[in-house]
Amino acid sequence: MKDFVGALPLIDHHCHGVVARDLDRPGFEALMSEGHRPVPGCSQFDKPLGLALLRHCPPVLGLAPHAEPGDYLEIRRTLGFEEVSRRLIGANGVDTLLIDTGHRSDAIFDPARMTAISGVPSREVVRIEAVMEEVARRKPASGAELRKAFEERLAERSAGAVGLKSIVAYRTTFDIDQSEPAEAEVDAAGDLWLRQLDSGEARRLENAVLIRHGLYVGARLCRDRGFPMQLHVGFGDRDVMMPKCDPTVFLPFIEAMETMGVTITLLHCWPFLREAAWLAEVFSNVYVDTGVSQNFTGASAPRVVAEMMELAPFHKQVYSSDAFGLAELHYMGARLFRDALAEVLAGWIARGDLLPQRAEQIARAIAFGNACRIYGLPLPASA
Amino acid sequence: MKDFVGALPLIDHHCHGVVARDLDRPGFEALMSEGHRPVPGCSQFDKPLGLALLRHCPPVLGLAPHAEPGDYLEIRRTLGFEEVSRRLIGANGVDTLLIDTGHRSDAIFDPARMTAISGVPSREVVRIEAVMEEVARRKPASGAELRKAFEERLAERSAGAVGLKSIVAYRTTFDIDQSEPAEAEVDAAGDLWLRQLDSGEARRLENAVLIRHGLYVGARLCRDRGFPMQLHVGFGDRDVMMPKCDPTVFLPFIEAMETMGVTITLLHCWPFLREAAWLAEVFSNVYVDTGVSQNFTGASAPRVVAEMMELAPFHKQVYSSDAFGLAELHYMGARLFRDALAEVLAGWIARGDLLPQRAEQIARAIAFGNACRIYGLPLPASA
Amino acid sequence: MKDFVGALPLIDHHCHGVVARDLDRPGFEALMSEGHRPVPGCSQFDKPLGLALLRHCPPVLGLAPHAEPGDYLEIRRTLGFEEVSRRLIGANGVDTLLIDTGHRSDAIFDPARMTAISGVPSREVVRIEAVMEEVARRKPASGAELRKAFEERLAERSAGAVGLKSIVAYRTTFDIDQSEPAEAEVDAAGDLWLRQLDSGEARRLENAVLIRHGLYVGARLCRDRGFPMQLHVGFGDRDVMMPKCDPTVFLPFIEAMETMGVTITLLHCWPFLREAAWLAEVFSNVYVDTGVSQNFTGASAPRVVAEMMELAPFHKQVYSSDAFGLAELHYMGARLFRDALAEVLAGWIARGDLLPQRAEQIARAIAFGNACRIYGLPLPASA
Repeated sequence: MKDFVGALPLIDHHCHGVVARDLDRPGFEALMSEGHRPVPGCSQFDKPLGLALLRHCPPVLGLAPHAEPGDYLEIRRTLGFEEVSRRLIGANGVDTLLIDTGHRSDAIFDPARMTAISGVPSREVVRIEAVMEEVARRKPASGAELRKAFEERLAERSAGAVGLKSIVAYRTTFDIDQSEPAEAEVDAAGDLWLRQLDSGEARRLENAVLIRHGLYVGARLCRDRGFPMQLHVGFGDRDVMMPKCDPTVFLPFIEAMETMGVTITLLHCWPFLREAAWLAEVFSNVYVDTGVSQNFTGASAPRVVAEMMELAPFHKQVYSSDAFGLAELHYMGARLFRDALAEVLAGWIARGDLLPQRAEQIARAIAFGNACRIYGLPLPASA
Repeated sequence: MKDFVGALPLIDHHCHGVVARDLDRPGFEALMSEGHRPVPGCSQFDKPLGLALLRHCPPVLGLAPHAEPGDYLEIRRTLGFEEVSRRLIGANGVDTLLIDTGHRSDAIFDPARMTAISGVPSREVVRIEAVMEEVARRKPASGAELRKAFEERLAERSAGAVGLKSIVAYRTTFDIDQSEPAEAEVDAAGDLWLRQLDSGEARRLENAVLIRHGLYVGARLCRDRGFPMQLHVGFGDRDVMMPKCDPTVFLPFIEAMETMGVTITLLHCWPFLREAAWLAEVFSNVYVDTGVSQNFTGASAPRVVAEMMELAPFHKQVYSSDAFGLAELHYMGARLFRDALAEVLAGWIARGDLLPQRAEQIARAIAFGNACRIYGLPLPASA
Repeated sequence: MKDFVGALPLIDHHCHGVVARDLDRPGFEALMSEGHRPVPGCSQFDKPLGLALLRHCPPVLGLAPHAEPGDYLEIRRTLGFEEVSRRLIGANGVDTLLIDTGHRSDAIFDPARMTAISGVPSREVVRIEAVMEEVARRKPASGAELRKAFEERLAERSAGAVGLKSIVAYRTTFDIDQSEPAEAEVDAAGDLWLRQLDSGEARRLENAVLIRHGLYVGARLCRDRGFPMQLHVGFGDRDVMMPKCDPTVFLPFIEAMETMGVTITLLHCWPFLREAAWLAEVFSNVYVDTGVSQNFTGASAPRVVAEMMELAPFHKQVYSSDAFGLAELHYMGARLFRDALAEVLAGWIARGDLLPQRAEQIARAIAFGNACRIYGLPLPASA
């Protein structure tokens, strides 16, 4: 099973670009974390993600597995980030990268450069909240103008995209009114936010009314374009109010999307794996991945994938790395996910719960088939 | 251990009747789900429950394991649902079925017919909310009349029963005032609900005051009759507001029941297995099962049972299938539970954590002993 | 790996004294539980903690593993609690006991007597809320006087301590305003509480304003002394309102402590293991243990430790037994933790995810190195 899954093409339906420069050790370690500040005398290599990185990546750069951090970073600098990116992203069997361009986009490669550097085709996923912030930076004269400009800009930005993404969980949590706000309410909220931006009281978009507006404008685009809306769930930066980022708290919105015919993909889901799997079971429009939790759990990734596989329908699971900044995270995501999926399926086969041929169908669906179906992508040539 | 547990009689302390007719494929698949609507091109067989069904059930109907869905459904139709029910329910070593008659009771077999078709003795568990709805359909003139008629009817319906069940988690969540409401409050709530039923504003019982009244009327019956009150927890239909169905949210009620001497059985518990196990540890009146999650997790059922076995006292665990509609769910529940329990115990024995003789005592307690004790049932003849 | 970890010295950074007398069976069983009242005909030995106790402890007292409870308790009485304590605490390789003296301190040994009886050095951890209650028992004339006396007394009590502990989770849950209250607010709350104590309306400290005051007074002491503040999390007595004891609910306080430079150790964490591990990943000041859940899960302790090891940085994990009352819980805690940690690491080694030498470094850090660093303790002589 390991060889079979290891050779499958993957659609990485949620990732980010890599940092477009060489990195020293502090710079590299900073990208190994979702918010952790350094502990004196301790290293980001001293955790599951660090172990997994040093196990899996050194061979790609010509070192033995379990290299020392210093040796690894030295050869990384010697090769240069472009060659490193080429090897770590281009050589892991990923067929297409669906890239979220809405986070620190000035610091990382955009889809075109990601493809240029890696040889892997890429498509864009547009982050709704980032577009509203982009529009606000142009200083519209009123909330009404902001609203119109946002609607136009989101449509425009989505023209070549394959999906939208919302980080409502970060900005307001899921514990909000989940209905569509009225236009007048949106305009008033826009007036307020623009004033707050002007005065420096507000920096980023955290106004629940505007975020809800963004979600529903985005939903209509998703419906019309026939592509999914991605929702960040759970694990992430330190500014997550975790108990209210349980995806079941967002059930009313998910149900509204089902009614509209909009596909929702729940990203990462850790630590709410079971809650997410249940939503995928009971709502026809919900898809799930284990995303960032593969890289952060490293050697324990099979536990995480096994927990998602407990209940989630096989035609509702997709793959993502959520790699950000480091090419290593692209490579590890694919490697850890393949190994974990193969281990779960092989275990079921060994116990008589699954025939090998059926296991292959399931693996193909999760590796690329489901993602191709919901994102409207062609099947990989190698599939 | 597998043979020993496989031969034990089971008390299925929470299940439902089967659908009293033959089923075409859409009808069959609809009963494989707790709310999922079809995804075009995808099948309910394409998930853990579907895999497990096709592994375990075909041999009972004369096919090889891992049959194709079409072949399985064809032989099912050829045999007819009565023969299928006889084989799948009568042949899985269940000693007694405790049947919840409060859900879609017009569409499924009642206890008498379940026994007739399967040869397995059955007893009734009465759903509190269904009785209040039944009484309301007779159009009492006032809330006060509703209250009195409900109290009488619940006592009457309970006469031959072995327990009561509440689905308060579905109707209001556990996040409610958990004290007993005053009579005047109940009567006013009844007046309101009856008016809402008349006008079509309300359909089912969702009034928290009336539900609380039902719980306390039920509690006194449970105390007087010396039988348990079952509480639905967690996983279920799509109308569950999951975070508020964590059973620890219902701690004040559970504590009130402990004071009254009423046994509570927490059903399913997934994804709140650990929370439920903790309640079973710290409250003398709390019992737990993994219920519906066995069938829905299929090949992963041992993970789920292992998680409950982490902490829950062995004399506080019971078995249920929560089978509804399909005879297959009765068969699979028993099979998956036996295999999972045997696997957990065998693992402990292999590591030296448990003696085989002690493992047998534990298995007997969980399979039937604890249920016989709390439901006042005779020990199975084969025990 | 098992032999290596088995021979490592441990710092038990959170435990309690043992009961200073011989125990009959009801007295012994009462200490095997965090709140469970007896179920007629059932025993506290009939659960995972009971199995583990009878597996691991009898050999220390000269019996074979898996002794009968009666035999075990008889030899325990024959040897006497002092000899039993000497054997079970002195012989498990624990280098230092960090003892919380704030719970039922009249019934159990204090640190000096724990050291005298076991030969194991011990240091004190002072429970903040217990100190405020101690001060209140001296009947200060006003809230302002209470406040001043508390600040003096906490500093005094901390003089020889290595850390402070708060049980805010038990008393108010984590779902409170987490800022520091103003002096006038504290004084008013103190006036109220003193009146309530006088009239008998209040017994223990449950006033959120006073508890918050205690936390911030304690925080400044921790900062100045350079030692940690321990926070009880999750599993415990029956008076925990579990969903609001999720440590991520306390994120604002944890972040305030990071800003102040105060180390936080999250105790037990079960069932919020993943949430706690995430906090250890994203906050530089957060450390975690699996504490009481090792003893209560017994044979399943490796599952629990494996779940914490999924994500938590290796330099952020520490060991505790949370033993209270019974010397057996000290012994089992150490034994179960060692076996679990060794099993997780050995599994990673076997799969190629970890080199043995690196595994040893990780084990040393978690067994004693991290605790020595944050509590300012010398490295064990045997390290």
